[in-house]
Amino acid sequence: MMNNLLDNISIILVDTKTPANIGSVSRCMMNMGLARLLLVDPPADRDREAIRLAAGAQDILNKAAVFSTLREAVADHGLVIGTSRHAGKQRKNIRTPREMAEAVIPVLGKNRVAIVFGNEVNGLENQDIALCNELISIPSSDAFPSLNLSHAVMIVAYELFIASGNAAPSSGIELANAGEVEDFYRHLQETLLVIGFLDRENQERMMFSLRQVFGRARLDIRGVRILRGILTAVEREISGGKENPE
Amino acid sequence: MMNNLLDNISIILVDTKTPANIGSVSRCMMNMGLARLLLVDPPADRDREAIRLAAGAQDILNKAAVFSTLREAVADHGLVIGTSRHAGKQRKNIRTPREMAEAVIPVLGKNRVAIVFGNEVNGLENQDIALCNELISIPSSDAFPSLNLSHAVMIVAYELFIASGNAAPSSGIELANAGEVEDFYRHLQETLLVIGFLDRENQERMMFSLRQVFGRARLDIRGVRILRGILTAVEREISGGKENPE
Repeated sequence: MMNNLLDNISIILVDTKTPANIGSVSRCMMNMGLARLLLVDPPADRDREAIRLAAGAQDILNKAAVFSTLREAVADHGLVIGTSRHAGKQRKNIRTPREMAEAVIPVLGKNRVAIVFGNEVNGLENQDIALCNELISIPSSDAFPSLNLSHAVMIVAYELFIASGNAAPSSGIELANAGEVEDFYRHLQETLLVIGFLDRENQERMMFSLRQVFGRARLDIRGVRILRGILTAVEREISGGKENPE
Repeated sequence: MMNNLLDNISIILVDTKTPANIGSVSRCMMNMGLARLLLVDPPADRDREAIRLAAGAQDILNKAAVFSTLREAVADHGLVIGTSRHAGKQRKNIRTPREMAEAVIPVLGKNRVAIVFGNEVNGLENQDIALCNELISIPSSDAFPSLNLSHAVMIVAYELFIASGNAAPSSGIELANAGEVEDFYRHLQETLLVIGFLDRENQERMMFSLRQVFGRARLDIRGVRILRGILTAVEREISGGKENPE
């Protein structure tokens, strides 16, 4: 079954306020052949309304794994895609769900892919967006662009389901998982502080921009190894240069 | 504005049981630029939950026209499209929402088109299907094909919105041109030689790998500027370290 590919998709809901929405999302997922639901900091109670709205998908609701931070939730995913509610001018390189789905299906053979949805009021916070390799935004009317959370999930799940039917067998590059990529960013940040490219005060904004640059690259394991090798070479050269004077 | 085309679409809900679903449908419609909602034999009460779920689309809910039969509701429509919940083998010639949307948009200039949704439990009755020119069925998983009514409307409305050409093209990032990218690779290669990451003899293979890493990133102008800024900072730091001994 081609649909097994979709087993490597995780839907991640961050800081959802209304339990009913989590139930509705479970149903949408099952309608579209998705199974793995991860919840970050969800409401304590999965109330009767959530269970009612899950309808035949209560199994997805019951098995949903709970995390306290998005960083933990995405750790074993090779690709993390955030949903942005407003395609703001400052946010470049936002794709549509359809473009995303077509690009993601070939990657699923060897990688877990997370699609992340923020809360009902504000969407994703900047600190969560920073953890995403790329962003998508659902096309909608300027007059009232704000979709209900479960409807947003439905559109994304539907596009993935449609795209999975046409999937060519995966041509598999093996993406680095989010934990390895975070280690790279940490290493990069340290090195950039050492060489004076980053100010201690104002480093977050530049790191955000660098995450956008490298996020788009969909780093694979070998790419991460090469880039970290460069950082290590820079550090060695600089500490060597400082030892020489002695 | 293209959106006027979508004004010729009517969403018709037949025999809906739950007022809340009518509210949710109103919101979906407004999200996707649709405005005309017709209700056949709806529940007497549009309750508080319906109004709450309509969110910013209460105007659509309030203006919804009510009919006692589908025959009356579709009377002034040139094309009537029914939604079938199960693409049963006996029902031939059922299209997908995407195929339907592409076929319907060119017709909208001079015709009203109705999309008809049955009730939550049974979908459309045969006598209603008989009034439809054609049928569509939403692709969904065999394991649990039954969509919530508002989610079914959302998918159809979304496909119409996309097909209408209203969706803004996905936000264009301005890619760096090949000359700028080549300048970056040259700068990178020089720096990597200086720090001893590259051997003079065997540099081409590593540069090829690095081109793969950064090539996937589809570098934009700002990204190139940042990366070259880092290279310059590395060079400055190293030459600083080497000048100190003097």
